[in-house]
Amino acid sequence: MALREEFLEANSAFAAEFKDGDKPLPPARKALILACMDARLHPEKAVGLHIGDCHCVRNAGGRASDDAIRSISISQRLLGTKEVHVIHHTDCGMLTFTNDQIAAKIKEDLGTDAGYGRDFLPFADLEQSVRDDVATVKSSPLVAPDTVVHGYVYDVKTGKLTEVA
Amino acid sequence: MALREEFLEANSAFAAEFKDGDKPLPPARKALILACMDARLHPEKAVGLHIGDCHCVRNAGGRASDDAIRSISISQRLLGTKEVHVIHHTDCGMLTFTNDQIAAKIKEDLGTDAGYGRDFLPFADLEQSVRDDVATVKSSPLVAPDTVVHGYVYDVKTGKLTEVA
Repeated sequence: MALREEFLEANSAFAAEFKDGDKPLPPARKALILACMDARLHPEKAVGLHIGDCHCVRNAGGRASDDAIRSISISQRLLGTKEVHVIHHTDCGMLTFTNDQIAAKIKEDLGTDAGYGRDFLPFADLEQSVRDDVATVKSSPLVAPDTVVHGYVYDVKTGKLTEVA
Repeated sequence: MALREEFLEANSAFAAEFKDGDKPLPPARKALILACMDARLHPEKAVGLHIGDCHCVRNAGGRASDDAIRSISISQRLLGTKEVHVIHHTDCGMLTFTNDQIAAKIKEDLGTDAGYGRDFLPFADLEQSVRDDVATVKSSPLVAPDTVVHGYVYDVKTGKLTEVA
């Protein structure tokens, strides 16, 4: 079965039991999670979130990219969130490459130079990457200056979250 | 109790029961979900994903932004994913504003012009926004040309997913 069909079949079962259709658009907990896209991290489960609780922004690394700042700004200005919780994790793919290496791999696999000159936002130090992203969120002119920002590392082997910033 | 403490307390309970510490870095289902950050959408639950199954990229709108393409490229070139599933949803905040309106709100609330001239990627037509993002993913030089791409709308009132692209 194609994954698309599996998703639709699993969703039919989910929708049949769904009881949270009355939640409003603004997040109940007035917070946003910024986390890595890693398949082993399910942020809502890891911190006990219910449907409607928090915005959840995810990208490769859980980085405070320009696009993450766009999302945080929309979340705060239009939907009333006041906190940002940054979650990176152990064994992250972002620790394993440099910009030059991925650009060369794109060239080799896809035959295009489009990867060169781009910043794919890899990092060499996991805890420092969290501190850097917390600092980027705090210093952005598009983020409210009184925003509460915390940073954590999630351990993919134990499921444990540790605060680091 | 601060939200930070609630997260850490909920995580202690989660970690105490955690049994999925043996999953490898590459996603088992070789796919990536691109979904909106909305608090009412928990993508993994909505399509039946287990820990380790799929990358999950999320931002305001679930848009195929330049940063989402960065994440997809890393997911494909370094971690072997072959499919992208785009999920937008009903009652999305992105349907409610224009770039000028949010830039003016940022100016009013935060006293900065930093919002002007930016594209916050709002949209006026939900299904069309899914088709647009599917097309953007398919046409990116950083995405493999044989990538399987599907697009869906998730109904926040019923939990139901409908394929639209």
